Amino acid sequence: MSVNFKPATRMSRLGTETAFAVSAECAALAAKGRKVYPFNLGDMNIKTPQNIIDAATKYMNAGKTGYCASGGIAELREALAEDVGNARGLKYGIENVAIQPGGKPIIGKFLMSVMNEGDEVLYPTPGYPIYESQIEFHQGKGLPYGYTEGEKDFKINLEQIENLITKKTRALIYNNGQNPLSCESDEKEMKQIAKLAIDHNLFVLSDEAYFDIRYSGKSKSIASLPGMQERTVILYTFSKKFAMTGWRLGGAIGPKEIIDQIIKLNVNDESCSPHFLQWAAIDALKGDQSGHKEIVKVLKERRDVAVRLLNDIDGIRCYKPEIAFYLFPNVTQAVHRLGYKKGKEELARFRVDVLQKTGVSFCTRDHFGKRLPTEDQEYIRMAFSGINVDQIEEGLGKLKKFVEG
Amino acid sequence: MSVNFKPATRMSRLGTETAFAVSAECAALAAKGRKVYPFNLGDMNIKTPQNIIDAATKYMNAGKTGYCASGGIAELREALAEDVGNARGLKYGIENVAIQPGGKPIIGKFLMSVMNEGDEVLYPTPGYPIYESQIEFHQGKGLPYGYTEGEKDFKINLEQIENLITKKTRALIYNNGQNPLSCESDEKEMKQIAKLAIDHNLFVLSDEAYFDIRYSGKSKSIASLPGMQERTVILYTFSKKFAMTGWRLGGAIGPKEIIDQIIKLNVNDESCSPHFLQWAAIDALKGDQSGHKEIVKVLKERRDVAVRLLNDIDGIRCYKPEIAFYLFPNVTQAVHRLGYKKGKEELARFRVDVLQKTGVSFCTRDHFGKRLPTEDQEYIRMAFSGINVDQIEEGLGKLKKFVEG
Repeated sequence: MSVNFKPATRMSRLGTETAFAVSAECAALAAKGRKVYPFNLGDMNIKTPQNIIDAATKYMNAGKTGYCASGGIAELREALAEDVGNARGLKYGIENVAIQPGGKPIIGKFLMSVMNEGDEVLYPTPGYPIYESQIEFHQGKGLPYGYTEGEKDFKINLEQIENLITKKTRALIYNNGQNPLSCESDEKEMKQIAKLAIDHNLFVLSDEAYFDIRYSGKSKSIASLPGMQERTVILYTFSKKFAMTGWRLGGAIGPKEIIDQIIKLNVNDESCSPHFLQWAAIDALKGDQSGHKEIVKVLKERRDVAVRLLNDIDGIRCYKPEIAFYLFPNVTQAVHRLGYKKGKEELARFRVDVLQKTGVSFCTRDHFGKRLPTEDQEYIRMAFSGINVDQIEEGLGKLKKFVEG
Repeated sequence: MSVNFKPATRMSRLGTETAFAVSAECAALAAKGRKVYPFNLGDMNIKTPQNIIDAATKYMNAGKTGYCASGGIAELREALAEDVGNARGLKYGIENVAIQPGGKPIIGKFLMSVMNEGDEVLYPTPGYPIYESQIEFHQGKGLPYGYTEGEKDFKINLEQIENLITKKTRALIYNNGQNPLSCESDEKEMKQIAKLAIDHNLFVLSDEAYFDIRYSGKSKSIASLPGMQERTVILYTFSKKFAMTGWRLGGAIGPKEIIDQIIKLNVNDESCSPHFLQWAAIDALKGDQSGHKEIVKVLKERRDVAVRLLNDIDGIRCYKPEIAFYLFPNVTQAVHRLGYKKGKEELARFRVDVLQKTGVSFCTRDHFGKRLPTEDQEYIRMAFSGINVDQIEEGLGKLKKFVEG
């Protein structure tokens, strides 16, 4: 319909979330009447706690329906500064918070604020694909760093990071409670990352989307290490903690100088985040927390069942994460035994075969960025945030049958 | 607090809305207990119609709280395609619509999609300041075009546009029902603009934010002229028609090829617009329209009073717009008689003096982009969307006294 339209060159640098294509395949299958087990979804099939919904209703009816400040309403900025600060042992003020329409906008806005064209930015792979997409879109150079599977979890390849850093490296994206790995740094690893950031004067985007979704222990923010608060922007989101993914509400929390830039971007990009939803978010932070606790309880049950059943499949091993809601089972033995060869295309073939034959849907390692040359194992990603326990049992039973024959 | 932070170079190209500073001055004055007449606000002091609020409540409680498609839910895209198409005599389908968190995001996303670095883009001045800001931010070159005050309204300087166009001119931003002028093209002018766009193969962003706020006659979209639909992206917003400014919901409507690019930006920038708000927006479009009609009725009363009282002030003349909710009175005689000289600084001094002495707050021409060399008159902008009739009367009474002495 358009006349001679050729997208602007920059659009060719913009990536996407290829996981959405998996959702489309599921929808097509379901439309044919086939049963689907949606382990592919990063979304939650859990309702937002009622007190938050009721608060939104109240404020909507009270006329909080006009524009508000681009950085967010003062009351929410203050509440979030306090909440995020308390949970991390840090002091933040209203000037350190910029409310956002979701956690995702913070990725691009952080990069636009700190990264010049040609600057290098370290980012994790496997990792959330939008990191790389936004780095390249804004003409930075992405430096992907990887992970190694250990005894009980995944560890960041620190040596690799160190070797990647040059004088042009400006920032590091760090995702503790990682998507898709659900892994966390131990104290030593976090300190080493912080040391690298300080030694090389890097700004850090600490994606803490899953900070509050945890099953044991206590989350720790890299911003709380000495010398880090002043160079770290925390990506906070209401999405997971309160099952508010579709509300699109989050916040950038960091040094005032960077937050000021992010607010300037808010003015230009979307004016502000929805007004009455911000008031409701205060209720999420300060009101009854039983809804949040119930969310974690439900997720923990699912995790326990899913990890047990996955490890019960011959040729699959999966560690038990204490944070986030993803499993990243190593399926190398299973897929090789079934005749799939090494690599991306074969793993994709395995995924599609499982989906078509059993209805069990998941993503693979390759939905989360480029493989590094050091990678020699095959992984899939299974989310348990959008599927109930009985369906987890049924689905993983079918997967076991498929794999074990 | 931040360590050695220097914003990325691109941030110096990003503009802002200087009108926000006027709001801050008002707030400071009000905090001192002074009465303020807020003619400066582009916001509305009118509540969102109850049926839309009730629909949002319903869908929130029904669990529409998870992620949805990046381009928007199919049902809203379809409803908006139909509504916008019907009102403009055009046929649009779901593939022509990308739901957005407000109307504003469409400006940047349109430019990112069609404009290469170094490309020129025509934009109106006075006009919405974000046009220029986003053109420069994304390294285009802005070509400002102006207006001339006629007998009854403002006319676009067509000859000027024609002289500005070069081989590097890629797009034109056209705002009919203009902010801050509230002026409209007559049929001849719109045809001439369309001819220029077609002759020079320009893509057009048609900002139609005020299309449905009108007091007589019928709005017309430039997209409805022959050869224009295939090169025009309409900026649609729910903000004004339904007093939903703080909901942040809008839509880009245009050729599929451009909409596809805009959806790719949605994926990267904010994932999606709030889910249950989109369901409520369907109710806005298809449900009871009495709320919308009441909004227009209230605004019309305010317009009538404000225009009458402004023209009753010696040295001020103001035409009566049939669209939008801004007045752009020519105050040249008044300010000169009061001893203010020509130009930006003197007009700003007049504004501050009026605010301090009377509490009457308004913006000036200079809050809406650079002056062109051809401009020799002084204007202020008074919005009547955020102030009731009795306050309009009281405030303009004080302005009259200030101006006439």
